[in-house]
Amino acid sequence: MKAVEGGVTAAIGFQAAAAAAQIKYKDRTDMAMIYSEAPCSAAGTFTTNIVKAAPVKWDQDIVYHHQNAHVIVVNSGIANACTGAEGFGYCRATAAAASKALSVPEDSVLVASTGVIGMQLPVDRIQNGVRQMAASLSGEIEAGTAAAKAIMTTDTEKKEAAVQFEIGGHVVTLGGMCKGSGMIHPNMCTMLCFLTTDVNISKELLQEALSENIKDTFNMVSVDGDTSTNDTVLLLANGMAGNPKITERNEDFHSFCKALNYVNTFLSRKIAGDGEGATALFEVRIVGAKSKEQAVTLAKSVVSSSLTKAAIYGHDANWGRILCAMGYSGASFDPEKVDLYFESRAGKIKIMENGVSTGYSEKEATKILSEDEVTAIADIKMGSESATAWGCDLTYDYVKINADYRS
Amino acid sequence: MKAVEGGVTAAIGFQAAAAAAQIKYKDRTDMAMIYSEAPCSAAGTFTTNIVKAAPVKWDQDIVYHHQNAHVIVVNSGIANACTGAEGFGYCRATAAAASKALSVPEDSVLVASTGVIGMQLPVDRIQNGVRQMAASLSGEIEAGTAAAKAIMTTDTEKKEAAVQFEIGGHVVTLGGMCKGSGMIHPNMCTMLCFLTTDVNISKELLQEALSENIKDTFNMVSVDGDTSTNDTVLLLANGMAGNPKITERNEDFHSFCKALNYVNTFLSRKIAGDGEGATALFEVRIVGAKSKEQAVTLAKSVVSSSLTKAAIYGHDANWGRILCAMGYSGASFDPEKVDLYFESRAGKIKIMENGVSTGYSEKEATKILSEDEVTAIADIKMGSESATAWGCDLTYDYVKINADYRS
Repeated sequence: MKAVEGGVTAAIGFQAAAAAAQIKYKDRTDMAMIYSEAPCSAAGTFTTNIVKAAPVKWDQDIVYHHQNAHVIVVNSGIANACTGAEGFGYCRATAAAASKALSVPEDSVLVASTGVIGMQLPVDRIQNGVRQMAASLSGEIEAGTAAAKAIMTTDTEKKEAAVQFEIGGHVVTLGGMCKGSGMIHPNMCTMLCFLTTDVNISKELLQEALSENIKDTFNMVSVDGDTSTNDTVLLLANGMAGNPKITERNEDFHSFCKALNYVNTFLSRKIAGDGEGATALFEVRIVGAKSKEQAVTLAKSVVSSSLTKAAIYGHDANWGRILCAMGYSGASFDPEKVDLYFESRAGKIKIMENGVSTGYSEKEATKILSEDEVTAIADIKMGSESATAWGCDLTYDYVKINADYRS
Repeated sequence: MKAVEGGVTAAIGFQAAAAAAQIKYKDRTDMAMIYSEAPCSAAGTFTTNIVKAAPVKWDQDIVYHHQNAHVIVVNSGIANACTGAEGFGYCRATAAAASKALSVPEDSVLVASTGVIGMQLPVDRIQNGVRQMAASLSGEIEAGTAAAKAIMTTDTEKKEAAVQFEIGGHVVTLGGMCKGSGMIHPNMCTMLCFLTTDVNISKELLQEALSENIKDTFNMVSVDGDTSTNDTVLLLANGMAGNPKITERNEDFHSFCKALNYVNTFLSRKIAGDGEGATALFEVRIVGAKSKEQAVTLAKSVVSSSLTKAAIYGHDANWGRILCAMGYSGASFDPEKVDLYFESRAGKIKIMENGVSTGYSEKEATKILSEDEVTAIADIKMGSESATAWGCDLTYDYVKINADYRS
């Protein structure tokens, strides 16, 4: 497996485009389209919020009940959430426009939105955007990058990745793009991720691979504890790599899962490090756990703690906050057996041993915590399971972005 | 029932004192003592965090396994959490000093600490403080107020309240003091509350009254989602009002519960409104719920949402964030039936009806949200249960206080 350039257009047969449809932003692109020359199997995972945006409901129907998908249309600026029957109608109108422009079935058009909750989409502009993008689709790397830029909201950089690996002598490519400051995030800043691959795989196994992988990747990202109404990960596979079709959980399936994990881990870390207002990526690793579930619960509790995040912003080795967040997580462990380390490019330091301070050097700890990627590692000495979660520090700018957003 | 002046010294037979023991702060008091002339029944509720500070473990033993309590010794500055056997030994040493100075049994001395996690207490200074306070105890209102000031950390004002009511022709008094920015709060800013009453009541009913009431009061406060290692509410009753002893859940018991609810609600609102960095008290009321549990889950989810709190700071009627936080709470409801209102001294406005915007005036909404006490009311139209939670807005100063704390 090797990393390659590009994102959603890296795999064979995928094209992309972007448009400035003036949905809410001025002077920038705000729509993206991903198109496959061949019909695709589609897998998807969606927000667990019971307040689901209209496009989430639209896509769930297609992913769960239809065999093929052909196109994804995305807009930023307005989330199309809490918009009732009118909002759902705009999903259909968007799909209808794409269906007509690209001669594909209406029920093969996936849609996704990100932006303010409660406003209705300007559907005329959306439909104009769809027509404009259908006419300018391209398989070039730059077209994928333009799409990745168009879906940004408070993101400060576009996020894309791609890898190549071999199955049965055939080169297979998987690429993707995403946006957002976390699956746990502002209402304007939904986590959206679109993955494309030319692998030949059954729809069932495609969904299994995705559902299993997001537990270790996107579901381990936390920016602010707020789970969006719009979170969506879509994975399209068009089979154009020509590999023998994957229909069982064999070695080929595991090769694909490994590639999927690489791309999703890369994109998850990108989201966490670009969390709203963040100055640092904060990684939390729990080792020595009795079960995976225990490790996940502890890692997510620490990475979500406002106090711990504020301490990371202050480059302050305030380890008591980490132990405190583990303690209220709901997972059981013995606080008096925990060892804790901080690690970054600047080094690694043992802060706590068996639940009490090691008498470490505050100066050295602060140096380690002053890097832009910082890891806390807690060993709870109960077994051999582990989990890693990603978040970011809590800063003035997070408050500024979210206090001022709509005005 | 009527509100009266004072706090922990309002009830008959209670005395208090404060001392500047130089535990961590300079130029201010940092220890408090509450003493009852007669032995008391003690009730207590404690943090659910499995990382429990040494004084929590010490007090749980006394409250659960001993009949009488006589004294409470509190320090601010250091939390005595994650301090192992050494830290627990300092609880005993503190109790021993109070036992000697006041001629009371060692196991009738409750202790409480708030401050940085992981540092050991300077026990000599603590013991000096105990001796100094034992010699300066007073039943005056001012002595209670001095104690309330000594236990402050990032609090910007002292928090105390007292009420009087009658039982069987006897005037009974209940008073209390507390500190903290929430039961959900910084590790330096534990929620501590000490209540004193001269009511004559059985130890069992005293505990029942407290355990039931905190569900509606302190457990409904959230500042930042971090449950402390030190949270403690202690309630001492010395029986000196001379009322016929309350030994069953009769009218007298309910009179006492009503008084307890008044004092605890007052103190809970004080904690929320004085949350770290807060500019506004944010109250969330869920009405029309099917069950109390559902209402509590929804109210706590909204009051804890970082995004909603940031919007309150910005005086922004960003109602989508409220519906979003209800949606990920884990409680079930129909988003398309929800009505939402904002209310404050400046008026009341209906923002959303049956899940979609009412087309309200943003200007009027901003005016209502610009007060220093703001309420959001969501009617989910499923039944007649309700719940109220209290929190505060999320501000630059919250980040500042918690990024810079230890340095």
